Amino acid sequence: MTSFPMNAGDGVYSYSKNSQLHKEMIDGAKEMVIDAIIQKLDIKTILSSSNTFHITELGCSVGPNTFSAMQYIVEALTDKYLLYQDQVINFTNNIPEFQIFFNDHVTNDFNILFRSLPFDRSYYAYGVPGSFYGRLFPSRSIHFAHSSSGINWLSKIPKELVDEKSPAWNKGLIHYVGASNVEVVNAYFAQFEKDMEIFFNVRAEEIVQGGMIVLITAFSGYIRLLKFFGSSLMDLANEGKLDESLVDSFNLPLYYPSPQDMTKVVRKNGLFSIERMELINIKSNLVDEADAKTLMMSLRSSIEGIIINHFGSKIGEEACARTILKSEEISEWMKVNYEKPSILFVALKRK
Amino acid sequence: MTSFPMNAGDGVYSYSKNSQLHKEMIDGAKEMVIDAIIQKLDIKTILSSSNTFHITELGCSVGPNTFSAMQYIVEALTDKYLLYQDQVINFTNNIPEFQIFFNDHVTNDFNILFRSLPFDRSYYAYGVPGSFYGRLFPSRSIHFAHSSSGINWLSKIPKELVDEKSPAWNKGLIHYVGASNVEVVNAYFAQFEKDMEIFFNVRAEEIVQGGMIVLITAFSGYIRLLKFFGSSLMDLANEGKLDESLVDSFNLPLYYPSPQDMTKVVRKNGLFSIERMELINIKSNLVDEADAKTLMMSLRSSIEGIIINHFGSKIGEEACARTILKSEEISEWMKVNYEKPSILFVALKRK
Repeated sequence: MTSFPMNAGDGVYSYSKNSQLHKEMIDGAKEMVIDAIIQKLDIKTILSSSNTFHITELGCSVGPNTFSAMQYIVEALTDKYLLYQDQVINFTNNIPEFQIFFNDHVTNDFNILFRSLPFDRSYYAYGVPGSFYGRLFPSRSIHFAHSSSGINWLSKIPKELVDEKSPAWNKGLIHYVGASNVEVVNAYFAQFEKDMEIFFNVRAEEIVQGGMIVLITAFSGYIRLLKFFGSSLMDLANEGKLDESLVDSFNLPLYYPSPQDMTKVVRKNGLFSIERMELINIKSNLVDEADAKTLMMSLRSSIEGIIINHFGSKIGEEACARTILKSEEISEWMKVNYEKPSILFVALKRK
Repeated sequence: MTSFPMNAGDGVYSYSKNSQLHKEMIDGAKEMVIDAIIQKLDIKTILSSSNTFHITELGCSVGPNTFSAMQYIVEALTDKYLLYQDQVINFTNNIPEFQIFFNDHVTNDFNILFRSLPFDRSYYAYGVPGSFYGRLFPSRSIHFAHSSSGINWLSKIPKELVDEKSPAWNKGLIHYVGASNVEVVNAYFAQFEKDMEIFFNVRAEEIVQGGMIVLITAFSGYIRLLKFFGSSLMDLANEGKLDESLVDSFNLPLYYPSPQDMTKVVRKNGLFSIERMELINIKSNLVDEADAKTLMMSLRSSIEGIIINHFGSKIGEEACARTILKSEEISEWMKVNYEKPSILFVALKRK
């Protein structure tokens, strides 16, 4: 299991200072998340043995986006609880307490996360180090799990992509975005399928009956911008500053599922029901302003670490810096090609 | 509320590399902790609504000592559970799961803690940022709380100690150790009493009926070595490198309770029963070898941060470095004055 932390700290290239994209996604999904809780969550079942909501944020990074999501989830759960209380005679009067388990890889900067926790939070906050492709919690102990831009990160890169004898060899590219070879996308999807099977199996152990998982992932729009990082690397290779085989042997471990992909992996697993699934168009301020630089800085904060890890800090940083310098070109490209940005929202319930 | 983290990271003066004293304490208390669990813990009551043990380590710092303590506690709880299972017909066959909540101030280095977690641990591990003089957990959610060298840290320094008009003014000293003025000790104890009242009140909310708190604190021996840090600061004052009023206005927020002190604060609070209380002599390898330097390095890793915080890094580091240089003098002093090192062990049960 490999880990790919966001850029640490709070410096100029840090995730905490460049997470506007993720903020848009969290804000874009807000109404859907609240609606799923109000319409679909069965409070009676999930709180049958507890007066405390146990919530986990899977892939929380360092904030601040994770805190705004947790805040509206706590508020929605409280509203739902009060609605239920009004409907039931003799129901306990105690407002439930909330525990939030902020999970990310052990390499995540939990110190920054903890020091950024809102002072006026209405929940008990904990850090959970470890991959969410493994067990993190005792059996049947979680009521609500949330992950935004989390499950896009594959547990590893499928070998075929870097095997020159394989039909899925992804020569000269660093992702399936921009690849004309369908075998490349297939290899990515196969890995996503395997990872999600593991993900659902471990979550099914941890989540109480009737408990909910909400997954939010980018679907269209800025995903296609990833290819510019690959072209910067190829520029360096063409200038002789980098051996092209290093590009051939690298692929970003990111997969962006379609609604069809998501339906397939959930049904195949069989332990969760799909309560809501929707593509949501987000009004991207970033796109309206065609602020390609902000957009690319945001992408950079997510992927620079893994690029440096493969190419070394000198080449990795130069490739990222060059990509940011292409902002004008990227801006032109966006005006012509940019799809309306949208996210995939899915709410699942433990059967 | 002020926080006083141990020296961070894993450098030459870090707590993680200089925590031999705390290791001795943890090892010294091991048999008592196990015995208290086996003899005194009422498994039936505490697990009546859960098949998961919720354990917290209060003031965990960064490891490695916290991990050895948690390991033997998990083993003892498992043994106790199996003993109980043997005695009861129709008792569930599931071995319970363990959640361990590692707590310390938000300024603690949780990144080091998480990266040092044992790979083969048999528990789910979480980090809990915050002062243990406040609420950390939902009501009635903790079964076992452990703190070694934690409650020695007062929440703050009583004002009288730094008020030159008060009879408790602690002029020229940085602790009650070495002070001839009884008002100084009284002021320290009064703060300890207030802090423990808060500590027991919040823990009483969090701990299930029959749940246990184990507290381990240094009692005699190396405590008296703290005065050498004070004398190094006074040396600097006498050399004109430091204004003496800065020494007068500083006191280490550390109190080392006697069994009588502990009995008094527990009884005054009234929410816990004393199941075991004992002074344990520890066979200090450090003392046998009269390794004053190792001992002083260990003390330094605990208190350097707070000294630097008051005196600035230049003076603070110099005072600590000078104290270490006095190892020969300290060694001589130890041979004449050193009491047999002992720790206070107390096991409490939530009524």
